[in-house]
Amino acid sequence: MKIKPLGDRILVKVVEGETKTAGGLFIPQTAQEKTQEGIVVAIGDDKDAITVKENDKIMYDKYAGTTIKIDGVEHLIVKMADILAIIQ
Amino acid sequence: MKIKPLGDRILVKVVEGETKTAGGLFIPQTAQEKTQEGIVVAIGDDKDAITVKENDKIMYDKYAGTTIKIDGVEHLIVKMADILAIIQ
Amino acid sequence: MKIKPLGDRILVKVVEGETKTAGGLFIPQTAQEKTQEGIVVAIGDDKDAITVKENDKIMYDKYAGTTIKIDGVEHLIVKMADILAIIQ
Amino acid sequence: MKIKPLGDRILVKVVEGETKTAGGLFIPQTAQEKTQEGIVVAIGDDKDAITVKENDKIMYDKYAGTTIKIDGVEHLIVKMADILAIIQ
Amino acid sequence: MKIKPLGDRILVKVVEGETKTAGGLFIPQTAQEKTQEGIVVAIGDDKDAITVKENDKIMYDKYAGTTIKIDGVEHLIVKMADILAIIQ
Amino acid sequence: MKIKPLGDRILVKVVEGETKTAGGLFIPQTAQEKTQEGIVVAIGDDKDAITVKENDKIMYDKYAGTTIKIDGVEHLIVKMADILAIIQ
Amino acid sequence: MKIKPLGDRILVKVVEGETKTAGGLFIPQTAQEKTQEGIVVAIGDDKDAITVKENDKIMYDKYAGTTIKIDGVEHLIVKMADILAIIQ
Repeated sequence: MKIKPLGDRILVKVVEGETKTAGGLFIPQTAQEKTQEGIVVAIGDDKDAITVKENDKIMYDKYAGTTIKIDGVEHLIVKMADILAIIQ
Repeated sequence: MKIKPLGDRILVKVVEGETKTAGGLFIPQTAQEKTQEGIVVAIGDDKDAITVKENDKIMYDKYAGTTIKIDGVEHLIVKMADILAIIQ
Repeated sequence: MKIKPLGDRILVKVVEGETKTAGGLFIPQTAQEKTQEGIVVAIGDDKDAITVKENDKIMYDKYAGTTIKIDGVEHLIVKMADILAIIQ
Repeated sequence: MKIKPLGDRILVKVVEGETKTAGGLFIPQTAQEKTQEGIVVAIGDDKDAITVKENDKIMYDKYAGTTIKIDGVEHLIVKMADILAIIQ
Repeated sequence: MKIKPLGDRILVKVVEGETKTAGGLFIPQTAQEKTQEGIVVAIGDDKDAITVKENDKIMYDKYAGTTIKIDGVEHLIVKMADILAIIQ
Repeated sequence: MKIKPLGDRILVKVVEGETKTAGGLFIPQTAQEKTQEGIVVAIGDDKDAITVKENDKIMYDKYAGTTIKIDGVEHLIVKMADILAIIQ
Repeated sequence: MKIKPLGDRILVKVVEGETKTAGGLFIPQTAQEKTQEGIVVAIGDDKDAITVKENDKIMYDKYAGTTIKIDGVEHLIVKMADILAIIQ
């Protein structure tokens, strides 16, 4: 079973909070509730609008998109406009 | 009696909740109330805007569109923009 | 006395509720208050925007448009965008 | 003294309620408070946007526009978009 | 000291209420509080958008624009879109 | 230390209230709280959108923009659209 | 670990309040809560929309964007439109 996002939407696998603070390098602050990291799993068909690719680690606006579970793992379908940055 | 959606609208047959959790593979989570699955029954005349086709299994924003019953079966008329992804 | 809708507006003759449930085939559900059927009586002059024609049986968003009575019969002036589907 | 509407505005002479129900042919219903009839007195300079002409009998959205009195007679300055239909 | 309006703005000298009702010809009605007459004193530099000229007597939406006093006389800076009609 | 406004923004030095009423020629009225005079100090890089130049005396919408102090003197960064007129 | 902003977004290192008032030259006033200074650390891929470059000292709308911490230092991801001026 595969989810194929439509248009400028992107399927993101949510990165768990534990991973995020490992090493103490990267901690959202007042934004603790606002940003979240994830891994791009699949991208929509509107290639012109989409500037991330599969396996990119990204930051997104946590309040954006729609949460779903795939095989028990939390995922998110977000629009490209709600992805803030790539973490390299 | 046939319903022909207009513009970028799509007629969707709602997939029952029982089917959705079968196999335990795919369960909307905090989004339990937000997303819903369905089967595309008919598409509108704005072919450029529509990127799904009849018999596609799709996820849509549950709060979108207008619910109708055809021969006692729940259907929905939604706009293309409210269809999030195709389930393959 | 004839009403000629302007722009992308359409004059619709409202189909009575009795007729709608006859045969039990087609019953709006949670949408009992939201959709309504009608017959297209006249269309506006913006032909490019209008994809229905006189005598089409249509579903429209009940809350849209402006209700008027012509010779005691309920009619509606709606914009094309508020017509959801053609019933064939 | 003449009023020349600007842009896509139209000067309408309001038709009195008595006239409207004469003959019992044409009575706004739930829309009793919403639509109103009038006669086009003058049109604005944006000829491309305007599809009515002087002396046309029209229906307009009663809540639209600005009411003025000319020689004691009620008139209205409305935008073209608030004129629903021509009554022929 | 001269005020030169910018863009599609227009400087209007407000016509006093006394003048307005003189002759009893022209009296705003329910709109007593909504429309106001004035004389165009200066126009902005966006000539394409402006279809009035200096010394035109106009009706404008009273709630629009910004009131200023020049040598003790009430003036208004309004946008072209808030000028309803020319009084000839 | 110099402030270079970006886009269609303009840096304005606020003219003190005392200066404004000198000579009694120019006094904002009901608009006492709404308009304010200033001198253009620097303009943004979007030259097409900007029709004022350095040292112009202008009127702006007092509620627009962001106030800053430069060497203790009150300045404002406003967008071009919030500048109403040039005072000549 | 590097953050690469997307689209017209910019990664800004927030300048501490102590630095800001040093020399007494530049003090936000009523805007004490509204503007903030920072250093551009990285810019997005939409080069046409972005008119600042790395190491520029800028003023931005404090309420805009999303705050994150990188190695314990406060940063902000803002859109170009929320950057008011360059401090030279």
